[in-house]
Amino acid sequence: MNKRPCPVPGFRFSGISCGIKENAALDLGLILADESCNAAAVFTQNLVQAAPVIKSREAMSAGRARAILVNSGNANACTGDQGAIDAEQIIKELAARLNCSTDLIQIGSTGVIGVPLPVDRILNHLDEVISVADREQTSADRFGDAICTTDRFPKGCSKNHGGYTISIFAKGAGMIAPNMATMLAYALTDAPIDSQDLRALWQRCVDRSFNSVVVDGDTSTNDTAVICTSGRGQPLQGDDLESFEGVLLAACQETAIQLVADGEGARCVVELNIKGADSEADARIIAKTIALSPLCKTAFFGADPNWGRIVAAAGRSSVSFNPNLIRLTLRDHQRSIVLFESGVPLPFDKSAAEQLMHGNRFAFDLDLGTGASKSRMWTCDLGHNYVTLNAEYTT
Amino acid sequence: MNKRPCPVPGFRFSGISCGIKENAALDLGLILADESCNAAAVFTQNLVQAAPVIKSREAMSAGRARAILVNSGNANACTGDQGAIDAEQIIKELAARLNCSTDLIQIGSTGVIGVPLPVDRILNHLDEVISVADREQTSADRFGDAICTTDRFPKGCSKNHGGYTISIFAKGAGMIAPNMATMLAYALTDAPIDSQDLRALWQRCVDRSFNSVVVDGDTSTNDTAVICTSGRGQPLQGDDLESFEGVLLAACQETAIQLVADGEGARCVVELNIKGADSEADARIIAKTIALSPLCKTAFFGADPNWGRIVAAAGRSSVSFNPNLIRLTLRDHQRSIVLFESGVPLPFDKSAAEQLMHGNRFAFDLDLGTGASKSRMWTCDLGHNYVTLNAEYTT
Repeated sequence: MNKRPCPVPGFRFSGISCGIKENAALDLGLILADESCNAAAVFTQNLVQAAPVIKSREAMSAGRARAILVNSGNANACTGDQGAIDAEQIIKELAARLNCSTDLIQIGSTGVIGVPLPVDRILNHLDEVISVADREQTSADRFGDAICTTDRFPKGCSKNHGGYTISIFAKGAGMIAPNMATMLAYALTDAPIDSQDLRALWQRCVDRSFNSVVVDGDTSTNDTAVICTSGRGQPLQGDDLESFEGVLLAACQETAIQLVADGEGARCVVELNIKGADSEADARIIAKTIALSPLCKTAFFGADPNWGRIVAAAGRSSVSFNPNLIRLTLRDHQRSIVLFESGVPLPFDKSAAEQLMHGNRFAFDLDLGTGASKSRMWTCDLGHNYVTLNAEYTT
Repeated sequence: MNKRPCPVPGFRFSGISCGIKENAALDLGLILADESCNAAAVFTQNLVQAAPVIKSREAMSAGRARAILVNSGNANACTGDQGAIDAEQIIKELAARLNCSTDLIQIGSTGVIGVPLPVDRILNHLDEVISVADREQTSADRFGDAICTTDRFPKGCSKNHGGYTISIFAKGAGMIAPNMATMLAYALTDAPIDSQDLRALWQRCVDRSFNSVVVDGDTSTNDTAVICTSGRGQPLQGDDLESFEGVLLAACQETAIQLVADGEGARCVVELNIKGADSEADARIIAKTIALSPLCKTAFFGADPNWGRIVAAAGRSSVSFNPNLIRLTLRDHQRSIVLFESGVPLPFDKSAAEQLMHGNRFAFDLDLGTGASKSRMWTCDLGHNYVTLNAEYTT
């Protein structure tokens, strides 16, 4: 298991059982800021959005937050008008108890979809989830556990930089219906950051981390990534802000890679580096096409250095390039093997390449040989466990 | 096995072994028109194109053809300059033997990629493949067999309309590396059709058939669909041409569905009908997103009436629609079960739905409830056989 994310000054945490999950499992978590703080959020692009996403997006328009309440076991998605009423009631009652505006409440739900939210179980436990919140590591852990569904392990990490702490609490593992294993990520820091800066840097960090990982390409109705900063005093600016963003991005990428590693039945995490492109957008399209290709992903599963599938996936990506200029390299932290160059496959040590790919972490670098732009994504393999998990779990 | 496509007046056929495949398997096929005839072709959109595709596209610019020569066992793809030289030499020598322009020669190759084409084996058998060509059903069958690679069965069908015959000879079954199981389809008819009309109707038919089926979304370096007409006399026009196109489309769709049914390890063929869209393009994007979704495809494999995955795939397709207006129906030729309507799942007989999906042919109708446009695609399930075929077959 990864080291758990640590508490951040200015925030209290709790995780309790409210009875949505069976066997008294933790299913209701709260992050409570000492006072209203700057916040930013990125929500799912899926047109079909769960009620808590719709309500939280509305609340986030002011860029401030006081509390984040998350339940697991039920996603409150595809629940019609009643789902919206339930989400509103949770926000209203939590705001009343905290004596704050409803705009300061972020809610998240993850679990089964199309089933009415057992809203009373949440409402009946609001007092408890508030009263037990504290600043202890065990409480932060309980929050992390309470937001999990089909996860094999809770996700997240902590980083320190310039005297400030960044912690990310996350869950997600592809999607397993009827639980669509929504990606939820909550980043907290005590660094003082201006509201506008926070919004811009959070979008950039999310794009290059959570939005750059692929398990199966199916985005959930509930995906959410929120950041809150409890920091007071003079906001970070210039170089200080830039280096803070670098550390935050590293934390986001570390967490995002944990999501891939817990991809449904994943054996390995594969990094895709597209280089030498005319634009970052081009590089990203190629990376995503490879990252989503079932043929490439089954080759990763089979530890097969199948240059043909990768070159063909790039070729159908809609991006224009000259196949005679590209170079494809397979590597891990120790070795590097060129597979394809100048339009033809190179002779290479097949058993060394297979051995490398039997590791649980390796990369393909595809250099298009024309421009100076690049993009990086992470994907996982597609193996029998993916099929078993997704086909044999029926609604 | 399907009924084999029959010979068409004006064409001779042959299929022989030239020694590319092992065990003297048929691997060189020829369709020889009695004289130069009107023709049209649609080639792969993949940027990485095999030498025979590049050369055949050039030759097809005049819209005429005399002969189609196809080898299996080697795709002549990713073979660099030598691949282009080899393809040119085949065209040149076949044209010389037929005493015709090189522009009238179409060639196709399918099989392993990145391995130099054993061109001498083909050249040494040109006399034989020409001399044995005749108008018999057994020779047409041998052509159909000679173009197959990993196919579990040869594809194609014949239709009659207005005194004319349409036959399609095809191969393909998703892609299995290092054999990228290229889709090759050769349609022949004796109906007289003007060159310009032929080009336009062939593109439309290919778009609604071969370009509307999805096994895994990975297009090959060698995909090719050619049509030739031996017909003389007054070309079909107006209603006659329109009804001919309808019959040709039906033949193309029947053949395309055979390709899906032979999708790597496929258990079932799933028809996706998107209706009530604002445009056909919108409907097609949604159909394709569902058709490619690993989550939807594993649910098909598991006979799971998983409305959530289908609705979520539509939601992430980038097409704008109102989730509260959509209706999703599961059906086969006998039954019809509404799963989702007005933003919420409906109660339905789960065991009846599962039983229906245990069949090898069923459909999902997704009505967006706004416009009058529609699109239809066919996909297959994603099961353990797909993973086994694609992961355990290594280069």
